[in-house]
Amino acid sequence: MKNGNDCNRLNGKLTLIGCGPGAADLLTLRAVSRIQNSDLVLYDRLVSSEVLDLIPADVESCYVGKEAGDGGVQQADLNRTIQENVAKGRHVSRLKSGDPMIFGRAAEEIAAASVVGAEIEIVPGVTAALAAASEAVITVTERAELQSFVVTTGRTAEVDSVPDWAKIVKPGVCVAFYMGVAQAWKIQSTLMAAGVPADAPADWIERAGQPQMRSVKTVLGRLAHDTKEQGVKNPAILLIRYPYSLCNAASLQATLA
Amino acid sequence: MKNGNDCNRLNGKLTLIGCGPGAADLLTLRAVSRIQNSDLVLYDRLVSSEVLDLIPADVESCYVGKEAGDGGVQQADLNRTIQENVAKGRHVSRLKSGDPMIFGRAAEEIAAASVVGAEIEIVPGVTAALAAASEAVITVTERAELQSFVVTTGRTAEVDSVPDWAKIVKPGVCVAFYMGVAQAWKIQSTLMAAGVPADAPADWIERAGQPQMRSVKTVLGRLAHDTKEQGVKNPAILLIRYPYSLCNAASLQATLA
Repeated sequence: MKNGNDCNRLNGKLTLIGCGPGAADLLTLRAVSRIQNSDLVLYDRLVSSEVLDLIPADVESCYVGKEAGDGGVQQADLNRTIQENVAKGRHVSRLKSGDPMIFGRAAEEIAAASVVGAEIEIVPGVTAALAAASEAVITVTERAELQSFVVTTGRTAEVDSVPDWAKIVKPGVCVAFYMGVAQAWKIQSTLMAAGVPADAPADWIERAGQPQMRSVKTVLGRLAHDTKEQGVKNPAILLIRYPYSLCNAASLQATLA
Repeated sequence: MKNGNDCNRLNGKLTLIGCGPGAADLLTLRAVSRIQNSDLVLYDRLVSSEVLDLIPADVESCYVGKEAGDGGVQQADLNRTIQENVAKGRHVSRLKSGDPMIFGRAAEEIAAASVVGAEIEIVPGVTAALAAASEAVITVTERAELQSFVVTTGRTAEVDSVPDWAKIVKPGVCVAFYMGVAQAWKIQSTLMAAGVPADAPADWIERAGQPQMRSVKTVLGRLAHDTKEQGVKNPAILLIRYPYSLCNAASLQATLA
């Protein structure tokens, strides 16, 4: 055990580490330090090979990919692996792409470690939506135009239980959709039916934070068409902006019509 | 000029660097690298002294605090400083607390540098809301309970133009309020009037990502009372969660009543 100077740590420790969008230099100094001081590092297929290269040779690491169809172990097995190791007093680090608290299924792993009395630490990371905004040079809030930023998902584990996008996309809001490529038409039609203007800016950022990053600029009214024409593929973030000035312009048009 | 090997850079470069919530080890490796390779580093009072300690002694740095009343220079002066330096071919780094694209007034500085032909780079950072969630061990999304995460502000530059919170806080949403301490009663009353249950979890995290971090757990119905009683002070993040199960419980109660 590397952290031998921590005498009070009888029950081991679970550290959930946000690893950012993929580029190794978008890890925080704290993330790198925790990886280096782990006894066991658990990772899945969402963590980039660049990041995995930071794991020292003398630290044990284990693939725990859990997506259906990829031959990975299931969440229950993963929870058991965490429990068995922290119970031995080991420091287990679980790598998460982006930030652990957003779409990271962190709650289940925290609960598993807590029931066996492990210390819990969460290391925040750069979430994919903000890496995407940086790469495309899009400010997700803007003085007097965009006052709220929403992160949501284009799909969920449960069929037919995607969030109610029409309630989310309001004037003054920028929304980031994770995993929305297959839903481009549904996003476009739902939002336009709810009154979001066709000329609201819509930007795809593929593979944000990775060398092959690509951005595709369009507007809500052409979203489905351009998504298909440009062959946008996951992992991709969709940023849709509904600034107040667009809302005011739409009201004015309605009044004049 | 340090980056002497970049022959094509005639017009200098502006790098907006996300410095995270305050702890120096929550900077990314890329942020540290860019700071070290700057000709001039601009910072304001929101950037912690721990972070400023990372600026090498041979790199020029300049305070550009711009809040009213603190004697700092104004945004127009800041824009001119950026323009004058990038026009000389210098690499100017502008430090931003958290992530540059959220509540960072980045658009104005990007525009100022762009008009003089500067290269622009944005280095994303750990935003305060996610650092707060990590420290308080609160997952901001949760399978089947919380599908969207919203970042909004408790105050704006314009009087009486805060976002319409009632439209933002819906079932399945976790909301992070920046700078909301003075608005605790208004947040509580607005949300409760809109039907958000009194027992929705509400957590304050003061000075997230700094050694003096403190969290205060309460619920929406006691938010104003506990904010005052516990003496919560800015900088603080308020996380309010409205999981679907609370919504269903409220509907059931209404049916039975």
